[in-house]
Amino acid sequence: MIKKLILLSALSCMSQFSFAQKKTPIYLDDSKPVEQRIEDALSRMTLEEKINIIHAQSKFSSHGVPRLGIPELWTADGPHGVRSEVLWDEWDQAGWTNDSIIAYPALTALSATWNRNMSSIYGKSLGEEARYRGKDVILGPGVNIYRTPLNGRNFEYMGEDPFLTSQMVVPYIKGVQANGVATSVKHFALNNQETFRHSSNVIVDDRALYEIYLPPFKAAVQEGDSWTIMGAYDLYKGQHASHNQYLLNDILKGEWGYKGVVVSDWGAVLDTDQAIHNGLDLEFGTWTNGLSKGTSNAYENYYLAKPYLDLIKSGKVGTKELDDKVRRVLGLAYKTSMNKNKPFGSIASEDHIAAAKQIASEGIVLLQNQKATLPINLSKTKKIAVIGENAIKMMTVGGGSSSLKVKYETLPLDGIKERFGKQTEVVYARGYVGDIGGDYNGVKSGQDLKETRSSAELIAEAVKLAKESDFVVFVGGLNKSDHQDAEGMDRESYGLPYNQDAVISALAKANKNLAVVLVSGNAVAMPWIKEVPSVLQSWYLGSESGHAIAAVLAGDVNPSGKLPFSFPVKLEDNSAHALGEYPGNKAELAAGKGKDLKDPINITYNEGIFVGYRWHDTKNIKPLFSFGHGLSYTTFEYGKVKADKSELTANDKITFTVNVKNNGKVDGAEVVQLYISDLKSSLPRPLKELKGFDKVYLKAGESKDVSITIDKSALSFFDPAKHDWVAEPGDFEALIGSSSSDIRTKIKFTLK
Amino acid sequence: MIKKLILLSALSCMSQFSFAQKKTPIYLDDSKPVEQRIEDALSRMTLEEKINIIHAQSKFSSHGVPRLGIPELWTADGPHGVRSEVLWDEWDQAGWTNDSIIAYPALTALSATWNRNMSSIYGKSLGEEARYRGKDVILGPGVNIYRTPLNGRNFEYMGEDPFLTSQMVVPYIKGVQANGVATSVKHFALNNQETFRHSSNVIVDDRALYEIYLPPFKAAVQEGDSWTIMGAYDLYKGQHASHNQYLLNDILKGEWGYKGVVVSDWGAVLDTDQAIHNGLDLEFGTWTNGLSKGTSNAYENYYLAKPYLDLIKSGKVGTKELDDKVRRVLGLAYKTSMNKNKPFGSIASEDHIAAAKQIASEGIVLLQNQKATLPINLSKTKKIAVIGENAIKMMTVGGGSSSLKVKYETLPLDGIKERFGKQTEVVYARGYVGDIGGDYNGVKSGQDLKETRSSAELIAEAVKLAKESDFVVFVGGLNKSDHQDAEGMDRESYGLPYNQDAVISALAKANKNLAVVLVSGNAVAMPWIKEVPSVLQSWYLGSESGHAIAAVLAGDVNPSGKLPFSFPVKLEDNSAHALGEYPGNKAELAAGKGKDLKDPINITYNEGIFVGYRWHDTKNIKPLFSFGHGLSYTTFEYGKVKADKSELTANDKITFTVNVKNNGKVDGAEVVQLYISDLKSSLPRPLKELKGFDKVYLKAGESKDVSITIDKSALSFFDPAKHDWVAEPGDFEALIGSSSSDIRTKIKFTLK
Repeated sequence: MIKKLILLSALSCMSQFSFAQKKTPIYLDDSKPVEQRIEDALSRMTLEEKINIIHAQSKFSSHGVPRLGIPELWTADGPHGVRSEVLWDEWDQAGWTNDSIIAYPALTALSATWNRNMSSIYGKSLGEEARYRGKDVILGPGVNIYRTPLNGRNFEYMGEDPFLTSQMVVPYIKGVQANGVATSVKHFALNNQETFRHSSNVIVDDRALYEIYLPPFKAAVQEGDSWTIMGAYDLYKGQHASHNQYLLNDILKGEWGYKGVVVSDWGAVLDTDQAIHNGLDLEFGTWTNGLSKGTSNAYENYYLAKPYLDLIKSGKVGTKELDDKVRRVLGLAYKTSMNKNKPFGSIASEDHIAAAKQIASEGIVLLQNQKATLPINLSKTKKIAVIGENAIKMMTVGGGSSSLKVKYETLPLDGIKERFGKQTEVVYARGYVGDIGGDYNGVKSGQDLKETRSSAELIAEAVKLAKESDFVVFVGGLNKSDHQDAEGMDRESYGLPYNQDAVISALAKANKNLAVVLVSGNAVAMPWIKEVPSVLQSWYLGSESGHAIAAVLAGDVNPSGKLPFSFPVKLEDNSAHALGEYPGNKAELAAGKGKDLKDPINITYNEGIFVGYRWHDTKNIKPLFSFGHGLSYTTFEYGKVKADKSELTANDKITFTVNVKNNGKVDGAEVVQLYISDLKSSLPRPLKELKGFDKVYLKAGESKDVSITIDKSALSFFDPAKHDWVAEPGDFEALIGSSSSDIRTKIKFTLK
Repeated sequence: MIKKLILLSALSCMSQFSFAQKKTPIYLDDSKPVEQRIEDALSRMTLEEKINIIHAQSKFSSHGVPRLGIPELWTADGPHGVRSEVLWDEWDQAGWTNDSIIAYPALTALSATWNRNMSSIYGKSLGEEARYRGKDVILGPGVNIYRTPLNGRNFEYMGEDPFLTSQMVVPYIKGVQANGVATSVKHFALNNQETFRHSSNVIVDDRALYEIYLPPFKAAVQEGDSWTIMGAYDLYKGQHASHNQYLLNDILKGEWGYKGVVVSDWGAVLDTDQAIHNGLDLEFGTWTNGLSKGTSNAYENYYLAKPYLDLIKSGKVGTKELDDKVRRVLGLAYKTSMNKNKPFGSIASEDHIAAAKQIASEGIVLLQNQKATLPINLSKTKKIAVIGENAIKMMTVGGGSSSLKVKYETLPLDGIKERFGKQTEVVYARGYVGDIGGDYNGVKSGQDLKETRSSAELIAEAVKLAKESDFVVFVGGLNKSDHQDAEGMDRESYGLPYNQDAVISALAKANKNLAVVLVSGNAVAMPWIKEVPSVLQSWYLGSESGHAIAAVLAGDVNPSGKLPFSFPVKLEDNSAHALGEYPGNKAELAAGKGKDLKDPINITYNEGIFVGYRWHDTKNIKPLFSFGHGLSYTTFEYGKVKADKSELTANDKITFTVNVKNNGKVDGAEVVQLYISDLKSSLPRPLKELKGFDKVYLKAGESKDVSITIDKSALSFFDPAKHDWVAEPGDFEALIGSSSSDIRTKIKFTLK
């Protein structure tokens, strides 16, 4: 009656069917070394799963291995705060309500603190917010060197000096990564302008490459141990930087021994063969042509997706490169998503708000303060006129990928009203019309700054208020609109936009108690500088912007910021414009090159190593404000520098000590700067180069000894013939001062 | 020159500014007892933060405490798989591509396995997928008792018997929660039909409440330790179940001592005062009126949001209830989102696919198999005709909140072709037209089952194929469309829809080798039962549907499922329809009550405890197929049951042992069922009640002793006068058999 049956496994295994007793596989076993776990995971993955984890699955995330339980990787734009959530395959807002965060000051402001502790709390705070938001990678910090004041993205970087940038980037990275969130130091390399960023080939000599443009990246990966690094858009030696044999394979992974993950900039991958072979590990942001809207998944069209799979399946490409990429991506997972010791993170904690305010306050630079105009003397001030659009304009929205959806941003006018409003009357006039408030990819600034009056009418109104008031604060500068401080396109001129120069001059005539507050991430021309007693460079300060500015204006905080880049008087005083090429080779520009990805324009950095103060110093071109410059409400007296030796050998160190005294009546902080001058060398060298600094806090009347130690590396230059760093024996000078143009004491020493 | 300044903390604390050295607070310290951590967290939270964590922030998530780093809570619909991602405040798909999962068999199928191990691997697999998807709570399982075959949501539940459901739900819960994912056992309580689910007041006597409807919930929270429980929509004693003094405060948290979180059903909260006081902890799904689209956050309008906050601030309500809710929600966080020992989860692992297939295969019930029609004898079969729309219809899409976005769903026709196609020809005809394929909240079924031919034409085509073939498999039943097996509305009749009865009768006439496969979550009328040799009840089987059905048809798997509910011949044979009220009180129905939330209709459960087989047995109404029924391709011979004692005392246990032999020629599994009959009692009792079962696997010819142990609780009934369970001394009978209507051996014993 019962037919003959083939009873297959399904029934016979029923009684033993038990998943629970399975042994934990090595790749999930926390007690095993990570290398062993990576190899175990790799051995279990199919070819398709390997291909899957080296490219994106959405705008900001990449695949995990769902079958094996290896989590996805989620990234978010930084570097000043964690970007809001966007739709899966669209840049539009996802409309979540849990993704507003604290905006920290832009990186120029951080750099201007010259305070490594500020970098550390910045990174820690940002990392905690990223971790709470479930992000494994924060797409920052940016460390491209400030080559021209026209670069629209300078505000995201740390200035013109490779040493300052290197010192400031390392604690940021460590702070972020302590949260199990990777940094992605960017943009590697030579993305020093926005115009033609996708279609320019940078020609730079090896000395400038190694001495100026690469050191912050080297510090970020070697000292900071940044778990990822982001490639750039531009070309170098004819290859796009995000898959570049020279930059990624030879230098980063070769000379520097980098074991982390190279992430493409968004949309910077353009060739499967180069993406396979030239050092890229993880592809993001490649144009999806909206295909994901339909049934097909456009991400399969990524250069490192199906095209790579097909090449392997056809036997045209082996799997050596693939396995290397996969190992690196798995290693990243073990440090982030699979790190069970990571904290939960938090958003807008008291510590975060305090950090945002302190970094902002310490970053503000007092450029000029004639007749002690600042701080505002409240005993003589019944009415304050605040003039200028930037006093009422949100700066956390706009500017490109660093645009944020903030929990709050205290505007300068509101900060001033909050601080001064109980004791004085605060009145406001706009003075000029810039761009109206708007949004960025659907994040609203909450502003609608419409204005129909003429410039003359606005100035007349402002002047009237200025005359009626005891003190005038002009808050202007640049903003985050196109062709100002914004990603994707450079500024079109060096001057302040929107007729602000005329407004400032008119105000200066109306009231001698005037402070100009410049909100910008770039140097600007200041034709009115001799008319204005007091100028503050206040950067983009994030959520605590208004509080920080008000605290400095009131003297609650004594300014201690120092410029991280030179302010030339005019554009032609900058070496990229005087000598180098910008925005590209003139003949090629005239021929229309650079308009297409496939027809890149060349940009030759003729100025070589003479960037920023290295140019001003060496060529004796006096800047408007020097690198390292920044005043205080007190004054500091430097003693005579002493060295612990007069000669040092190759493996030795030398320590310089100087006594610094606060000889004013208020507490304050001074950044003691050490520059090294090579008195004789076989190759041309800058007059001096920053090789040490320390920020010292001194109560009124207090003095302290400040010591700075260097070794041979501080004396070295990159010798392109030897392709190595060389410190030539001979005489050097240690210059110690308050800015690159305010050297207070110096001492000679000799390298044996 | 320097004015007198007030130097506030910002500057003076600069040098000591260090977050890193802060001690880990108790609430984040894993080494501290969880109660202490909860109190510490509670003490740090503001009133607004406390209010925030007891209501939703989006369709499926609730707030954390971002400032303190307490994570958000993310839920997802279950219970058969993890629902796909929807927009923040819309039910539409979010359009993600990482959210397709394995669909496990619907809970009726799981219950039909009568195998606790299947529950365990079900829970483990589902929990792993939920954890990989980042979910902290899976909104299931459903354990409402099967009262009427018209209930559209029966497919999500586990049948008519409180003991079977209790036994099956516990391992499911433990399996899920081992992943740091909470279950939310639902819907507590008395949501036994969909019609009027929002606007009906259930009137049920205490015996039926405690003996029939509550036991699975009690087992879920006391034995399963389900970390959350979901309230229901309906009213009991005039209060909506999701904020119900009697069900939640008196029974759940009072009598049962529940310490977990009571979650509202989505949109089941309707009153702030009751939500505060009547046992609810966490509010979800309250209608947001689309307000979140604008700038205002509609979630602030939740009953437990601003209205509650305002009451506290005005002093009208204290914070005792709030703190209790917050403690419970924090406790949940420590078990889920803040549980550092939870695994990463995985999706569609080999284990998951094997589990889905095995549960499906074991759940299929062989209702009838005359002349050993099944399994299909391949030596005699050159051509198989597959007839019926359900052979080509996806069943994982639709049906309400349990609708899924699957990685794949093997359709019955595809499974049959895959299994038989190499040895035989497989032809197909639709036979009837049901609903065309569609979508559910934007998840596409991928089908477009248009058909323009008449019913007669379709039948003629099917009959022609049946006559030409050696074997006919009809795959029909219900589907997930409105008024079939679907949430929100009940079935409108007991019969098969779409003229299927006529198709089946025609096929039976055309070919005697016919197997009817019924895909449904409910009993249906079978007027053709005597014409058809073989019938399989195959439920909704999920991703492995077609494979499981083909494996049983081929005999690769020997069916071992047993019915978890009775199949009455006709609707009037069901007690709710014979005696109880359905869908509500007739006079009130006629008066139009129940159409509005504020005008609920009463439903009196006049049948009391006599639900399902308790009714059929006691009233001697022979069902079409009995509770516990299910055939095999082999036969099992039962020996005579023995007991280890003839008398037991109140604190004693008694063990029954019976030898079971597989006396057929193929391996197979039998569910040995133990029913208890109280031979004399002070209150009416059912003829017998299930109090034990064990599934035993026997190779052909093999025999095993099966032992089942019970204690006094298996002899008890709920005495409403005493409001307690009572086991009355006297004579009982232990009945052991293969179904509730196929008792093979019995033995008397006495409770002293």
